[in-house]
This record gives sequence, C-alpha cells and structure tokens, in this order.
Amino acid sequence: MKYGVIGTGAIGGYYGAKLAHSGQEVHFLLHSDYEYVKAHGLQVDSCNGSFHLTDVNAYQHTEDMPPCDVVLVCLKSVNNSLLNSLLSHLLHHQTLVVLIQNGIGIEEDVQKMFPDVQLAAGLAFICSAKTEPGRVNHQCYGSINLANYSCKDETLMQIVVDEFRLAGIQAELVEYHEARWKKAVWNMPFNGMTVALHTQTDLLLKNEATRRLIREQMMEVVGAAQHLGIKNIDSSFVDKMIEITDSMTPYSPSMRLDYDFHRPMELYYIYTRPIEIAREAGYKMPKLEMLEAELRFLEEQNNKKG
Amino acid sequence: MKYGVIGTGAIGGYYGAKLAHSGQEVHFLLHSDYEYVKAHGLQVDSCNGSFHLTDVNAYQHTEDMPPCDVVLVCLKSVNNSLLNSLLSHLLHHQTLVVLIQNGIGIEEDVQKMFPDVQLAAGLAFICSAKTEPGRVNHQCYGSINLANYSCKDETLMQIVVDEFRLAGIQAELVEYHEARWKKAVWNMPFNGMTVALHTQTDLLLKNEATRRLIREQMMEVVGAAQHLGIKNIDSSFVDKMIEITDSMTPYSPSMRLDYDFHRPMELYYIYTRPIEIAREAGYKMPKLEMLEAELRFLEEQNNKKG
Repeated sequence: MKYGVIGTGAIGGYYGAKLAHSGQEVHFLLHSDYEYVKAHGLQVDSCNGSFHLTDVNAYQHTEDMPPCDVVLVCLKSVNNSLLNSLLSHLLHHQTLVVLIQNGIGIEEDVQKMFPDVQLAAGLAFICSAKTEPGRVNHQCYGSINLANYSCKDETLMQIVVDEFRLAGIQAELVEYHEARWKKAVWNMPFNGMTVALHTQTDLLLKNEATRRLIREQMMEVVGAAQHLGIKNIDSSFVDKMIEITDSMTPYSPSMRLDYDFHRPMELYYIYTRPIEIAREAGYKMPKLEMLEAELRFLEEQNNKKG
Repeated sequence: MKYGVIGTGAIGGYYGAKLAHSGQEVHFLLHSDYEYVKAHGLQVDSCNGSFHLTDVNAYQHTEDMPPCDVVLVCLKSVNNSLLNSLLSHLLHHQTLVVLIQNGIGIEEDVQKMFPDVQLAAGLAFICSAKTEPGRVNHQCYGSINLANYSCKDETLMQIVVDEFRLAGIQAELVEYHEARWKKAVWNMPFNGMTVALHTQTDLLLKNEATRRLIREQMMEVVGAAQHLGIKNIDSSFVDKMIEITDSMTPYSPSMRLDYDFHRPMELYYIYTRPIEIAREAGYKMPKLEMLEAELRFLEEQNNKKG
C-alpha cells in the first residue's frame, strides 16, 4: 500500500518514518523542512532505538504526490481548512484518510469537506517533539489506536493496523466515540492547565489543590461522555489516567509547546467543540469552560507579544 | 473619641490619617515603618488633596497604646491570628472593633476570639497603596461602608459614620450580610483572575472570553448570596460592577500586589470560606473553586521562589 503523510512533524515524522523504515512506501509532504530532508533524510531519535531514513519521498506540494491508499493527516488541527486543497490530490476511490489529531468533532468537519472519503481517527499515545529540521525526538510511549469513522471496508482498517504493527508500532482497532472521548479525558485538563499555570504535568499532580482540580476536570469529560451515551467510561478510567501521569516523566503537552513558541493553540477541537457538543446535549463543563476562557485570554496576549 | 489603628498600611494609613487630620485622636500601631513615622510623620498623597501628619501617635506595641473607643483593624486577614494578643490591650467595655478587611466569615472568627467585643465590618472602596515607609498613595475612590455585626449601640455606629464624614470620607451604614457578599461580587473574580492570568482589570474585561468568565464568576457569588437568603442582589448588580470596572483606570487588586511581592495571599477569607459556606448551604461555585485551586498552586510556586 502507498502511504501519504500530511504534516511531517513530531507525530507524522515519527509514524511515517517507522512505516517507511519497515519497508512501506511512504510519501511525505513537508513545509519548512523540505530542502533539509531532501538533502539529508529524516532522523528519528527514539527511546526504542534510533534510526535514519536516507532516501525520503519528500514533497513540497501535494500536486506532485501520487494518489495514496492511506493518508495520515498529522497537521495541527488549527490548519484543517487547508485540507480542502491539500487532500484532494492524494485521493483515489478507496483512500482511507486517518486523522491523527487531538480533539472532538474533527472527523465530522472533514467529512463535510469530502463527503465520499473514508475517514478514520488516529489516537496517538506518544511523547515526541520535532527538535530541529528533519529530526524527531521520540521520548516515550508510541502506540496508536485506530477508530473507524466512515470506512466501509473493515478489512482495510485491519490491514493498516497490521502494517503499523509490522513497523514495530503498538496498534489497536477501537470504537470511535469512546476512543475520542477517552483521549479527551487526559487532553482537556493537562493541555490547558500546563499553559494556564505555566507548568508541567508532574507539578500539577503534586499540588493538592490542582491534583483535585485535574480530577474534577477529568470527571467533567467523563460526565459529558456518559451523557452522550458512551460506554466503558467512568471514574476508574480517571484514576487510571492520573496513575499513568504520576508515573510519567514531567511532561509539557503539545499545547504548552505551541504556546511557548507563539504558535496558535488547538483550542477549537480540544475545548470549544466538545464543550459545545456536551452543552447541546444538556451537560455543562464549567471548569473546562473556565479553562477555555483563560486560554483564549492567554492566546490573545501571546499574539500581541508575537 | 479615641481611635486605634492596627495595621498602618494602604488602608489603615489612609483612613487613620484622614481622621487624625480632621482633629480626631488617633493612635497608630506600626511595624516596619515605626522609626520612620515617629521621626518624619505620615504622608498621604491623594487624588483628593495630599496632606502630611507631623505629630503621629505612633506605637510599636499595643501594650503601650491607650484603650480606644474605636479600633480599625486593617491587617491583612492572613495575620488575624495575631489579633488575639494585639487587640486585648486596646479594649474597654464598649470598644467597637471595625474589621476593614476583605472576605467572608472574618467577623464570625474574631467574635470567637473575643465573645463580648462589639464588632462591625468596614467595607472600603478605595484604590490605594503604601509605596514607601510612611507614605500612602491614594489613587482614587475612598468611601467606606460600615455594617453592624454585634454592636449593641446603634448610636455608636452612627457616631463613627458621622466622624468619618467629618473627616471628608464618604461613609454609609449598611446591612452586614448584604454588604459583605456584595463586596465579594467584585473581589472574588478580580483579585484572583489578575493573579491567575498575571494581568489587570482592564485587559480581563477587554477580552471577550474573560469578560464572560468574570461575569459568570460574579453570578456564582450572586447565586450563593441569593441561596443564603440575602436580599437586593441580582444580575443588575453584576452589570453595575462590570460597568464601574470598565470606567476604572487599569487596576491591580491587593491580591495581585501580594503575589507580586511574594507575600501570602488572602485566599482563606476571599475564597475558601465563602465557597465552603455556599457549599454547606447546597450551592456550588465551580468556577471560583477552580480559581481557588489555581491560586493555591501559584502560591506554592511563589513560596518556592521566594
């Protein structure tokens, strides 16, 4: 199968390089790193063994890329309006587009742009960062769950999972709504709180007041999910998320990095949209609403600083 | 009447000096500024006309002060445990103690220390700061409302109000619970939010998201007050508070100054206690609860720095 990667950063660079390294045909769309990667290849510094890709199928424009069987969309969701022009060149009749992005409501919006395209969600559990051009630093974890949104061909979904596994990536097929909301349980509190209090995951859990607050925010997400009829999600999942984070090395989630580097934060799909979906279903998330307001304020101030 | 002032800072320095300037006998307890004020007097730089007090009845210890008819307590409420020893020397059988401090539950706790003392609340509407030793900078406003908590002598309350007025201070007698909770409508959102987002009142109201958030937090205070049976408080009072703040010059409330100078913040009486009182009465204040947690975190980090 032919793979396309839109957005060769911390996520797309890692999964794309792993697939290519295992022998799959992978075509990478690059932006600022194009010249560098064309000349020097792609380096993955990984806790599970580093490696280098010498001959990378690197492109500056999707017009030059071949139609692909699977497209991994690894853009920041703030740039999803670009998909309208970026994606169309990569599609054939049965292309599966996997949206490896954080948040709720993404597939719904992309499906509106491309009503006939087969979509899946990719839920990455990974700590990685692009530290310099053509170089991905994979710190820990690395599994990915795939969830079918509108793929008519379950076999295709399974093939992709198998090919990820062959590439040494832990991968599972999971239920779409449950997976997206479970991921939000961690993402909604930690992404924003590390920005709002300019801190990292460990300190938020060490302070008694913010440890309780993180838990309450997680319970708001669980409450919303339950209200929306999602199964297999309750306070024991919250306990597990907190336990896992306790055992992690101090971590700055992607939103904190975006804020620090004066890049736009993914506020819409991580906060606005899930809060709105829950509210429309009659469920309120007051503490996450407040967090969103604080982040909107900080983003405005951050923009002024440039 | 003899006045005593405990805590000669931005508030005690201003009201005490105004009373002394108008001819009242005022005895000031000072701490770090004692030597300076004894030698050079007390300077009030005021938007309503500056003045200097040359001969100040300044004391380092309450043991040296005479019993007073009215004691103005202008300490930060984080130091209220000191009142046990500080107050006793100043009391006679009919002393009125006026607690000019921010928060909810203060009078209840001081009354427990001194079950027989007559207490009143003093609600100061003033922008002032102690900028250097013996120097108070009064920027704007300056009125004070007095509310009877346990004074058996309504005439005494009225005399104090009259003497404040004679000193050129706008003063009113108001209802205790209504006054304390109305003050909290402004104090709870703005004190904490200027710390949490490291900003000033004007920017919080200029950003659409935080303007809405401030309003929602104010409505939580109104909701709690209504739930506690307090009259004359509804959303129109919130509109008025926001309107007044819109017309103020950009302002850093006392909590922001305390945080910036690494002093303890008045979290207990401004947040913990009112939130607890409301919760016990069956009313939740989720956004102010979250704000308190953020402030507890920031206070811990601030202590480490300094």
